[in-house]
Amino acid sequence: MIIVMQLEATQAQIDAVAGAIREVGLDPLILPGEDRVAIGIPAAIKPDQRERLDSMLGSLEGINKISQTSRPYKLASIEFKRQRTQFEIKGVGFGPDQFTMIAGPCSIESYDQLDEAAHLVQSAGGKVLRGGAFKPRTSPYAFQGLQEEGLKLMKQVGDARGLVTITEVMSGDLVPMVAEYTDILQIGARSMQNFPLLVAAGRSGKPVFLKRGPGATVDEFLLAAEYVLNQGGSQVILCERGILPLDRSYTRNTFDLAVVPVLKEYSHLPVFADPSHGTGVAKYVPPMAKAALVAGADGLMVEVHPNPREALSDGSQALTPDQFTALMADLGKLAQAVGVKLA
Amino acid sequence: MIIVMQLEATQAQIDAVAGAIREVGLDPLILPGEDRVAIGIPAAIKPDQRERLDSMLGSLEGINKISQTSRPYKLASIEFKRQRTQFEIKGVGFGPDQFTMIAGPCSIESYDQLDEAAHLVQSAGGKVLRGGAFKPRTSPYAFQGLQEEGLKLMKQVGDARGLVTITEVMSGDLVPMVAEYTDILQIGARSMQNFPLLVAAGRSGKPVFLKRGPGATVDEFLLAAEYVLNQGGSQVILCERGILPLDRSYTRNTFDLAVVPVLKEYSHLPVFADPSHGTGVAKYVPPMAKAALVAGADGLMVEVHPNPREALSDGSQALTPDQFTALMADLGKLAQAVGVKLA
Amino acid sequence: MIIVMQLEATQAQIDAVAGAIREVGLDPLILPGEDRVAIGIPAAIKPDQRERLDSMLGSLEGINKISQTSRPYKLASIEFKRQRTQFEIKGVGFGPDQFTMIAGPCSIESYDQLDEAAHLVQSAGGKVLRGGAFKPRTSPYAFQGLQEEGLKLMKQVGDARGLVTITEVMSGDLVPMVAEYTDILQIGARSMQNFPLLVAAGRSGKPVFLKRGPGATVDEFLLAAEYVLNQGGSQVILCERGILPLDRSYTRNTFDLAVVPVLKEYSHLPVFADPSHGTGVAKYVPPMAKAALVAGADGLMVEVHPNPREALSDGSQALTPDQFTALMADLGKLAQAVGVKLA
Amino acid sequence: MIIVMQLEATQAQIDAVAGAIREVGLDPLILPGEDRVAIGIPAAIKPDQRERLDSMLGSLEGINKISQTSRPYKLASIEFKRQRTQFEIKGVGFGPDQFTMIAGPCSIESYDQLDEAAHLVQSAGGKVLRGGAFKPRTSPYAFQGLQEEGLKLMKQVGDARGLVTITEVMSGDLVPMVAEYTDILQIGARSMQNFPLLVAAGRSGKPVFLKRGPGATVDEFLLAAEYVLNQGGSQVILCERGILPLDRSYTRNTFDLAVVPVLKEYSHLPVFADPSHGTGVAKYVPPMAKAALVAGADGLMVEVHPNPREALSDGSQALTPDQFTALMADLGKLAQAVGVKLA
Repeated sequence: MIIVMQLEATQAQIDAVAGAIREVGLDPLILPGEDRVAIGIPAAIKPDQRERLDSMLGSLEGINKISQTSRPYKLASIEFKRQRTQFEIKGVGFGPDQFTMIAGPCSIESYDQLDEAAHLVQSAGGKVLRGGAFKPRTSPYAFQGLQEEGLKLMKQVGDARGLVTITEVMSGDLVPMVAEYTDILQIGARSMQNFPLLVAAGRSGKPVFLKRGPGATVDEFLLAAEYVLNQGGSQVILCERGILPLDRSYTRNTFDLAVVPVLKEYSHLPVFADPSHGTGVAKYVPPMAKAALVAGADGLMVEVHPNPREALSDGSQALTPDQFTALMADLGKLAQAVGVKLA
Repeated sequence: MIIVMQLEATQAQIDAVAGAIREVGLDPLILPGEDRVAIGIPAAIKPDQRERLDSMLGSLEGINKISQTSRPYKLASIEFKRQRTQFEIKGVGFGPDQFTMIAGPCSIESYDQLDEAAHLVQSAGGKVLRGGAFKPRTSPYAFQGLQEEGLKLMKQVGDARGLVTITEVMSGDLVPMVAEYTDILQIGARSMQNFPLLVAAGRSGKPVFLKRGPGATVDEFLLAAEYVLNQGGSQVILCERGILPLDRSYTRNTFDLAVVPVLKEYSHLPVFADPSHGTGVAKYVPPMAKAALVAGADGLMVEVHPNPREALSDGSQALTPDQFTALMADLGKLAQAVGVKLA
Repeated sequence: MIIVMQLEATQAQIDAVAGAIREVGLDPLILPGEDRVAIGIPAAIKPDQRERLDSMLGSLEGINKISQTSRPYKLASIEFKRQRTQFEIKGVGFGPDQFTMIAGPCSIESYDQLDEAAHLVQSAGGKVLRGGAFKPRTSPYAFQGLQEEGLKLMKQVGDARGLVTITEVMSGDLVPMVAEYTDILQIGARSMQNFPLLVAAGRSGKPVFLKRGPGATVDEFLLAAEYVLNQGGSQVILCERGILPLDRSYTRNTFDLAVVPVLKEYSHLPVFADPSHGTGVAKYVPPMAKAALVAGADGLMVEVHPNPREALSDGSQALTPDQFTALMADLGKLAQAVGVKLA
Repeated sequence: MIIVMQLEATQAQIDAVAGAIREVGLDPLILPGEDRVAIGIPAAIKPDQRERLDSMLGSLEGINKISQTSRPYKLASIEFKRQRTQFEIKGVGFGPDQFTMIAGPCSIESYDQLDEAAHLVQSAGGKVLRGGAFKPRTSPYAFQGLQEEGLKLMKQVGDARGLVTITEVMSGDLVPMVAEYTDILQIGARSMQNFPLLVAAGRSGKPVFLKRGPGATVDEFLLAAEYVLNQGGSQVILCERGILPLDRSYTRNTFDLAVVPVLKEYSHLPVFADPSHGTGVAKYVPPMAKAALVAGADGLMVEVHPNPREALSDGSQALTPDQFTALMADLGKLAQAVGVKLA
């Protein structure tokens, strides 16, 4: 942290800032500049110190600007774990040098619908099946999912076909139930800062697929991962899925694909992208899925439905079987061109 | 809903859209225009019909633009309840013709701290005490609140001083506990779309103070209220508390004050504003608090701390006792000028 | 500027950063911290030095974060001019302790329309008349204004009624013409970073009314003012007029009223607000106009039309004569309550 | 346009809306729904009619929601010109089936610097040289470009090497001068709604490279192109270059790559992407450049500098010669994989 004083800051004001820094147990470093004074703190600041300090500085006079000079996350940072996180679930790899496809319907609707989707995913070479049992819906009048019944279908289909499964969990008290039926816990975009849920997921020992909140900065996103890691979870996958749209009339969100290389620069965790929610429109999913692969994502989550026309939710963003098969073929070519293994 | 076809849409494409509308049990109205065809649906569309229809239209060709012509909320709408919602909690009114002040520290830190804040609020004429026991914190390393211990302190202080109390509840399973100790359940901005929590709060029968999410549109905000109302809750208070900032370097959020008259135009629910989180900087709280009053808000939530310098969280946005007392005096004058009763 | 190195930055990387700083003629200050090194620059950095330095740092390795510790504007800063800017135009004051009303139609349509609007403004106590002759329109098919003919009408009406006049100028080469006919040059939101225009306006010697761009940060806004001040202009008025909307379906923009106290904290220039464009909806103009006054704005710009129903542009945000007269009465009461002089 | 009335709208209110529609010369179509009335306009609405109508509706009571059912652009729309625009400049193609590289330094600094950059571009297979002579800079203290001297250098280098040249023009009165020295006129992001400039560029007969404004919606972007097309310009290239960032601390802008397939869906114009400004950080340029190619862009604009460390502007986002050469090789492989011709 560096505190830059106003041009005409008095000695008493400078002393007050220095005093506040000392009060939280840190050493201020006075930096007299040409026209004004800055005060730096050369040591690492612990979170509780920073919080106390923020409060104190908020009530002091003579300050022009406060800059945070450190990144707030630690366990999620590549500085603290130089080796990229890589792990396998039932033989399916997540992490560098491979490109892992997660696909399936938005909502689990029936055994047949889910199994048909699973068949489709598997035929095209995919190994991870997604499907929602508990659905976070903006409107209370929208289909809320099959709930525990859906989880059971997911387990049945996953077991029968030997697919890894992933489904969303919406609150901390449901973590044990969801963890029983599925391989990976998904935390949805609107739950990214549901802190009790993050803690429960971290404690579960299960792999966690964490979607970025639509308004989340990179620091907020990595701090959400930090909540999980801090509870002992180590298999966390980050997923970009679209941020608040500038323009709602052509796509549902703004797909922030450049966050993929950013996250890979600052974190060791695998980074996925979800172009289905990222754009919200089926016809934009293939170009953005391919773009994600060449931009360096470690995998994708896409929605595919045996019959999008009949989907109970989000049918307008789900790929048809044909579109999905064509996309997998295109991804295969690109994976080869850039030298990653498509799974 | 109205579906506008492309210029060169074929009759088969038009028929397919009309067919989809019929398939969900509605009657399409074909509107041949000068250069293209539009297809309207004159009836009210039920949520499940709309969802099915969206999915079907997503897979059809020849469509240029789909416009939603109806607002998605109902119980929260002033069209369905013409009389503004107004209620009393322990004799303190919420709703039109009065301006109700909710104040207190960000976090409950100790009996003395909370009691001192309560004394301050009361002395200045306030009747509702806020204070956080469970704190949603961006970083896992930040102070997380005193939890149940904090709730007990809140109840003690509230009872002793005869103040109405409000505190945040962060997950559905905690609703019963929080409801036992406090008069009003606060749902924080980051929980605005925590649907299990909204449902639990609605079922509790307690008044609910619902903060707008930082990225929430008006429709999303009113649909969150709809979740509570739909469960039988009727005493819901809406609160603007700042949206995603364009510029993070001077304020923490963008305080969207104009949403106050917008919400009062479309909803019957009381509308509050929280300039402490709305700006994140103590010195901007008084001007924006006064602005909220004259813009038609039904009340305010502000953070005040006996000694912001010592606050364990958010001290930089809390008013000092002197600032709070001065603000209450200013609000009193303005309340008189605009003819509302300050409480 | 402070450059924080990565945890494992090598000595060679640290030396390279220090070397770059020396290369632009500045002295690096090495700050060894507990776990990493930071490098500060205690002197004021000249713009060309900063630009060179940014380029050099961009190509160096081992850097974790670069923080700008100084504000980029100078002439617009209250640090460099402690006394608030205050001036008179034809006897009408702009600046502290008074609240100045600028009103009139969006576009000048005819002598009668403008004169009727002027009469209305004057009757209600206003002294500054606005009206557009050159109109920046999103669509080439929309009414583009009466152009020079409109300027002439503005001058006629202003002279006849003894009102101060203001109109928008859209490009640098039109500054001399517009300056001939009107008292204040308005630079519109979409021209806030039209740098040749800012330079021309600054050179004209005329007062400049500078609207904030819809995506402009505070620094970008004050740097636009700096362009004008840097050319010798000293009578610059800043105006908030709404930023990019989160939600386009209820208002046209997000009215960022909290920027008013922010700008008054960091700049000496008068700060106005335009709730007509800020909200885009006539019925939200009065509450936000009143809010602006109590939030500390030095004045308002509002659109009023003798007959909004007949307006050639933006009629939906213009006040009717009755609404305007009622608003002026309300503002009068509030001005009295907060102790400023309404003009 | 469709106007949905409030639930309790009176017959008089409905009649007033219908009357307003008739007043502008259109036929209202009354659509009685189950619980409320909607009023549609089946004909195409001319811009002046729409403007008048907006004004009138703004002053009427009983309206719940107004939806625009048509897209506002015409000449830029693929509906009005089914064949994709494709053209050649000095033998270099722009449009479908080829991927055209525009590269060069941010600013023209000297003959040697520009020629070295040109050599680099050419060696790697590029055929279009960019370089700024007039620079739009946020701060008046930043390097403003070599101006006419820079244009002359551009022409010299372009002629000598047989490269197509492109440079930015910042105001309408400079169009003739810039058009004399360069092959393509670039209109920068901050000038996207500089309407006099758009008109002048359209009249010049030169190809126009139009960058999307950082806050521009798709409709606003295409309407800016419409200004150029409406003046007779037909060779317009659209370019995405980053929109307002959600998070300014890791990238300079949010690179909205998904707008590429959106624009190609709705417009016939070639669509380029500029990942240098889109991210603002050199190391994120290659992944996003490759992503743009596979997402369907028709070409790229990237910044490359013989020695970014020495650049007078934007050095931190410029590729080094080695990075550029490597990128071109990677793009070549991807172009082959997706079947487009790289130029």
